[in-house]
Amino acid sequence: MFRKLSTFEEAKKKIDEHFKPVFLGEEEAVLLEAYNRVLNEDVVSTLDIPPFSRSTVDGYAVKAEDTFGGNENEPAKLKVSGSVNIGETSNVKVAKGDAVEIVTGAPIPEGADAVVMVEDTEREDDGLNVFAAVTQGENVMKKGSDLKKGAVVLKKGQVLGSSEIGVLAALGLTKVKVLKIPMVAVISTGAEVTEPGKPLLPGKIYDINAYSISTAVIESGGKPIYFGTIPDDKTALAKVIQTAVVSADMVITSGGVSVGPHDYTPQIVDSLGKPGIVVYGIAVKPGKPTTVGYIGDKPVFSLPGHPTSALLIFYLLARPLIQRLAGRPASGMKMVRAFAGSRMFSAKGRRTFVMVRLEFDKDCRLIAEPVESGASGAITTLANADGFVEIAENEQFVDLNQEVAVMLFRGLATKT
Amino acid sequence: MFRKLSTFEEAKKKIDEHFKPVFLGEEEAVLLEAYNRVLNEDVVSTLDIPPFSRSTVDGYAVKAEDTFGGNENEPAKLKVSGSVNIGETSNVKVAKGDAVEIVTGAPIPEGADAVVMVEDTEREDDGLNVFAAVTQGENVMKKGSDLKKGAVVLKKGQVLGSSEIGVLAALGLTKVKVLKIPMVAVISTGAEVTEPGKPLLPGKIYDINAYSISTAVIESGGKPIYFGTIPDDKTALAKVIQTAVVSADMVITSGGVSVGPHDYTPQIVDSLGKPGIVVYGIAVKPGKPTTVGYIGDKPVFSLPGHPTSALLIFYLLARPLIQRLAGRPASGMKMVRAFAGSRMFSAKGRRTFVMVRLEFDKDCRLIAEPVESGASGAITTLANADGFVEIAENEQFVDLNQEVAVMLFRGLATKT
Repeated sequence: MFRKLSTFEEAKKKIDEHFKPVFLGEEEAVLLEAYNRVLNEDVVSTLDIPPFSRSTVDGYAVKAEDTFGGNENEPAKLKVSGSVNIGETSNVKVAKGDAVEIVTGAPIPEGADAVVMVEDTEREDDGLNVFAAVTQGENVMKKGSDLKKGAVVLKKGQVLGSSEIGVLAALGLTKVKVLKIPMVAVISTGAEVTEPGKPLLPGKIYDINAYSISTAVIESGGKPIYFGTIPDDKTALAKVIQTAVVSADMVITSGGVSVGPHDYTPQIVDSLGKPGIVVYGIAVKPGKPTTVGYIGDKPVFSLPGHPTSALLIFYLLARPLIQRLAGRPASGMKMVRAFAGSRMFSAKGRRTFVMVRLEFDKDCRLIAEPVESGASGAITTLANADGFVEIAENEQFVDLNQEVAVMLFRGLATKT
Repeated sequence: MFRKLSTFEEAKKKIDEHFKPVFLGEEEAVLLEAYNRVLNEDVVSTLDIPPFSRSTVDGYAVKAEDTFGGNENEPAKLKVSGSVNIGETSNVKVAKGDAVEIVTGAPIPEGADAVVMVEDTEREDDGLNVFAAVTQGENVMKKGSDLKKGAVVLKKGQVLGSSEIGVLAALGLTKVKVLKIPMVAVISTGAEVTEPGKPLLPGKIYDINAYSISTAVIESGGKPIYFGTIPDDKTALAKVIQTAVVSADMVITSGGVSVGPHDYTPQIVDSLGKPGIVVYGIAVKPGKPTTVGYIGDKPVFSLPGHPTSALLIFYLLARPLIQRLAGRPASGMKMVRAFAGSRMFSAKGRRTFVMVRLEFDKDCRLIAEPVESGASGAITTLANADGFVEIAENEQFVDLNQEVAVMLFRGLATKT
């Protein structure tokens, strides 16, 4: 099998070239469960909103012209002929010289074209003195002024947050069409990995990746299908990957060792369909043994076994595809600027990612301190790293106190 | 009933003074469903990790001293006495002069204290030439070097993301103790509001707030209990609020009108328990009619009926309490800096919040453009506003092109 490391940019390009943002289909979500889903329809208003002209103040509905000339010294004199309440319709009509009592939000009665604020009036039994003239339409929210029937209110592709859910409710909708969530098969491989909860035999370690990657899939807008850990057995692994490709929209494996058995996954991917493996190792540190292929339209990522490396490559290369399948903008990771707390060295000729922990120093400067990674410290690194600093292929190091961009694994909420 | 508007800062202070961050109890979550939950225990490692000393390279396990002096011209000469594989234990022992074949991740056999990389060796049948000496511990990840049994790995109060879930998996755990999620009762009031999905009678409008606020509760780390819309009936409303206070950790009502019926909620809150209403209106725009009370330890927010105002006050005052009940840091809202696209005026003597839409101009400057709000445009505002700009009580306006801080209602992912 032909092997040549791709540079990081080549790998991204090859992955992109073969990627098809397949339409995964739509489903209906009830409104209270539609939070954070992606809309799959233009939502058109079926109503004028407001559905009737409403008063925006408490006061009296009038014909505006009846108030013309009224002022503090010489009020316009009207006759209170009835009242309308909120949430009700009434048959009250406003004839010339009439004033109808009205509260905020109540429908403007027929014949009226403005509302006088209660503060600008004085009541004497059925008589009403109006001390300030109003113009036509004053203090009236006209029918359809907020939304016209037939207007596009929300667009296909919008992510539904609290405002958008509120807008759907305003139209009286209880369900909405949303994109299906991409299903991502997550498989751990390796003779040494044991599923959490099972007894740990000598020579074995607990599997981390299926869990950390499944969670990262959720964070990215996908739904993980947990396939557990598969021993280093070519036939077994081939069967599982075949099932995974059929049942999911994307497959992510991790683990295996760097010689021999590691090659199982690429061999299997190549045997299961075209185009097969498109990236055979990447000149990055960490994450070099990563392979990426496609079985038909389905991307298959084979990530390293080291948990931090696996998660890092997931964030950099797999997450954008999940987001695109989900119909979300490939948002990239959140970034903060910080200062290097130590000199950080790059791996010769490879794009290098240094895991860092963020801390504020005495002057409230945000400091990026490298987290001991490498061979040992898989868990320590996972637990302590807030994100990573990228060093380009042609740079040897990032110097102490140099300003750096830190890509964040999670929000910084707990630290600010 | 005594009424005096609080300033915004006074309101915050009064809410804080009475707030008790009650412990809501804990529950067990299975690992794959523990994403974004708050840990309610210190997690202590029950294992040494790795549980055995492992090789970090492919090569040969040796006694380091047997390689001393070996170099490219004069290799150290050893005898290959066996092999150990990954995921297995073996009875192979390394005696003086022995070399045992080993792959990355496999357990270091008894007697060995270092691993020679395969690249530094040459094999001749059972003979092994070692061209580079190794020191004790070289290429060995020692038992417990990542985590010592008994070490605290994750701390009570941490929010579980993909890294943290990975760490829990590493310990072989499948369940974890997390804080219960605060339950927030959401009630809409007003004679004019109709639940979405029901027919819209004349004079009525669909309820927005129960939906937008319920969604905002989810965003804030709470679980909404939807109580639907309650007509302007004091007895009915009192019953519902009483039930809500018993069944939820916090109650949020919205709606009612500005005269008369509006006072129902505060009256009910005052009648149901001490201390009752603590904030009776706030000198802000929008959101002035907001009242806040406590029935025992349970906060009761009564938000305005206008959907944007309700959501704004929710974000500013209610959300931090939900976060604190949830055991999360009261993170505040996400903020970006932008330039005012128009002059924005404040309401005299009131803290003013201007809804804005964010756009990039030709020079890629982020511009905050006010969204028409006020009496009309409830839905238009909700759909179009990305966030708001705050104008202090003692400022008259924000000038065109002035730099402003925009508090975001949601992420800006789609715009950057």
